[in-house]
Amino acid sequence: MAQQISQAVRAVMRPSAVSLEPYDPSFSPCRVNLSANENTYGMPAEVRDHVSQALAQVATNRYPKPMSDELRAQIAEWHGVMPEQVIVGNGGDELLFNLFLAFGGSGHTMVDCPPTFSVYRLYAELVETTVRDVRRNPEDFSIDPDELVKAATDASIVVLTSPNNPTGNLVPTELVARVCEACPGVVLADEAYGEFSAAGSSAEPLLSGHPNLVVLHTLSKAYCMAGARVGYLLGSPSVIGALSAVRQPYSVNVLSQAAASVVVSEREAFEPTIARIVSERSRLAGGLSSLERLGVRVWPSEANFLLVRMPDAHRVRCLLRDEHSILVRDFSSTPGLRDCLRVTVGTPAENDEVVSAISQILSRED
Amino acid sequence: MAQQISQAVRAVMRPSAVSLEPYDPSFSPCRVNLSANENTYGMPAEVRDHVSQALAQVATNRYPKPMSDELRAQIAEWHGVMPEQVIVGNGGDELLFNLFLAFGGSGHTMVDCPPTFSVYRLYAELVETTVRDVRRNPEDFSIDPDELVKAATDASIVVLTSPNNPTGNLVPTELVARVCEACPGVVLADEAYGEFSAAGSSAEPLLSGHPNLVVLHTLSKAYCMAGARVGYLLGSPSVIGALSAVRQPYSVNVLSQAAASVVVSEREAFEPTIARIVSERSRLAGGLSSLERLGVRVWPSEANFLLVRMPDAHRVRCLLRDEHSILVRDFSSTPGLRDCLRVTVGTPAENDEVVSAISQILSRED
Repeated sequence: MAQQISQAVRAVMRPSAVSLEPYDPSFSPCRVNLSANENTYGMPAEVRDHVSQALAQVATNRYPKPMSDELRAQIAEWHGVMPEQVIVGNGGDELLFNLFLAFGGSGHTMVDCPPTFSVYRLYAELVETTVRDVRRNPEDFSIDPDELVKAATDASIVVLTSPNNPTGNLVPTELVARVCEACPGVVLADEAYGEFSAAGSSAEPLLSGHPNLVVLHTLSKAYCMAGARVGYLLGSPSVIGALSAVRQPYSVNVLSQAAASVVVSEREAFEPTIARIVSERSRLAGGLSSLERLGVRVWPSEANFLLVRMPDAHRVRCLLRDEHSILVRDFSSTPGLRDCLRVTVGTPAENDEVVSAISQILSRED
Repeated sequence: MAQQISQAVRAVMRPSAVSLEPYDPSFSPCRVNLSANENTYGMPAEVRDHVSQALAQVATNRYPKPMSDELRAQIAEWHGVMPEQVIVGNGGDELLFNLFLAFGGSGHTMVDCPPTFSVYRLYAELVETTVRDVRRNPEDFSIDPDELVKAATDASIVVLTSPNNPTGNLVPTELVARVCEACPGVVLADEAYGEFSAAGSSAEPLLSGHPNLVVLHTLSKAYCMAGARVGYLLGSPSVIGALSAVRQPYSVNVLSQAAASVVVSEREAFEPTIARIVSERSRLAGGLSSLERLGVRVWPSEANFLLVRMPDAHRVRCLLRDEHSILVRDFSSTPGLRDCLRVTVGTPAENDEVVSAISQILSRED
C-alpha cells in the first residue's frame, strides 16, 4: 500500500510525478507464488554454492566498477558482440528507465503496444514522454504491422515485447526489422522471457544491420536472479554510449556483479530447468484447457507464464490467495484483458495445485 | 573514457541528456587508493563473516521486498523514527536522483552551494531543473546565511551537504532550520560523511519540527558498503511517500539488503575504525600542514577526507599516480578549488605514504 502524500507535498512535486500510479505487483505472502514470473525451481545447488563462494570473496568497501567490466565481457562473448555493445543494469528496470531518460522527454513520443508490461508507459510518462498506443488484436494479441510501422515513423522510442508480457506471444522478427527501418529513434525488443521461446525468435541477429535496435535481456527469469537485479541490453556502441551517459555510475553493486558472473559462466546448468519449464508450460496449458467447460480459455505462450481468461477472474484470484494460498497475477481490470489472470509456470506440483484449485473454485460457482 | 555517441543518435536524444557531462571519478587502478572516500580499513573480519553467512542463505530467484522491510525497520529503530520515515535506496545516488525526479523538473529550481558534490547539479539538469548557485566563501567555504535563505524562498529543492564534499566543513544546524522555514520545497541535508563529524552536528533533531527536511545517510563510507550500494533517507512520511512513488520498485537487491541488515545490527563493531579515521585525519592534516613551506594548505575537515591546495596540483596528482601508485582526487579545475586535491584519510601507513610522496614531489619542484 502506497504511503499517503499530503497536499503540501503534492503542491511542490513535479506534475508527472503527482499523477503517477506507481507499479503495484499486489504481492501477498503465499505458500505457492506464481505471480511474478520468477523461476520457482530456484538456482541449481552447485551454482548456488559457487555464488556463495564468490560472494564471500567480494570486498564491499570499494565502489563497483561502473560498467561491470568482467560481466560485460562475459555477456559480450556469450552473445557474440563487442563489450561496447553491452550495458549492464540494476535489473532490466534501470535500463528501461534510462532508455526513456535518454530518448524520451517532453516533445518525444513512445509507441506502446498494449496490453503489455505497464512499466513502459509508467516510465515514459514520468519523464513527460507522449505515449502513442498501437493496440493489439483482442483475440490473439497480434500487432497490425502497417499500423505499427506508420506509428513508428516519427517516434523516439518503439517498444516491442517478445514474448509479450502478459499475453505470451512473439513479435515476428520481420516486423521488428520493418519497424527499425521506419523509425528515426530507438527500437527496443524486450526479450526478458526470450529463453523460454522457440529457437530463431530473437531479434538479436538484426543488431548488426540495424544500429537503432536494442535488445533487452535479464537474468531475473530463466537464471533465477530476480532478487539480485541484473539485466543487460545489447545495441550499437553509440546507443549504448547514450545510455551510459544518463545512468547512475554505480548502479550495479559488487555482490550482484559477482553473483551474475558465476551464473553467466555456469549458464548451461540452467538448461534442464528451462527445458522443464517449457514442458510444464504445455502440461499446465493442457490442464487449464481441460477446464474449458467451466469457461476457461488459455492463450498459447512462448514465455514462462500463461494468460488465462475465466468467469469472474478477480474473485477467483482472491479465492486462490485466501483459500489456497496460491498467488497469481490479476489483469482482470486491464483494458483488453477482461477476466484475465496470468499464471507463472511453476514446478509440476505447483502447476497441479493451481489447476486443481481453479477447477474447485469454478465448479463451486456452477 | 565515455563511449562516442554518433550524430544520428544525438539527434534523437533528450536535449538535457545530449549536453550532459557524465560523472567521471577518473579512476585508475593504484596500489594506494585515497580517491573515493571509501573506508580503506575494510570491514571488521567478524562482521564480514556474518555477512557471508547471511548472503549464503539468500534466495536470489525471488524479487526483493520493494521497501527493504527488515532493513527499513532496523534503520528506523537506530535513528528513533517510524519506518514510514525511512526510504532505502540503491546507494545515496538513487535517492538523490529520485529527489530531483519527484521535486525537480522544468519550472522547478534547485539551490546548490558550490563548490560541492557535482552530482546534485548533474541530476538536476538531467531532469531539466533550474540550478541556482549560492557560492561558498572562497577562503573558508562557509555559506552566506542571508543569501542562502533568500535563494531558498521559491526553491523546490535546497541541497545542504554537511560535512560538505570536497571542502569538509559543516553547515550549522541553525542555518538548516532557517532554510527549512524559508523554503516551500524540500531541503536535503546530505550527511553522507556525518559519522566522522563531531556529535551534535547532524540536522536529524530538526526532522520532527520540519516536515520538508530530509536527511541523507549512506552505508558506503563509514560502514564499508560502497560496493553494496545502500543509502537511506529520513524524512516526513509524506515526502518519503513521494520518493517511493517515483522509484523503481525493486531497486535494492536482496544481497545488499541482507548484507546491510548485518552491518546495521553490528554497527558498533565499526566504531573503533571510525574513531581511528578521525584521529588519523588529525595526523594526516598535521603531516600535510608541515609541508606549508612547500606551499601546501590544508582545510579543517569533519569528514573522512581533507581538501589540500598546493602548487601545480594537477601535476602532483599525476605524479602521485604514475610514480607512487597513489590515487587522490583532482579538483584543480573545479571553480573555486584552484590547485586543490582531495585526499581520503586512509590507514596510518597510507597516510604516511601520501605525505611523504607529496613532500618528495614538491621538494623536487623547488
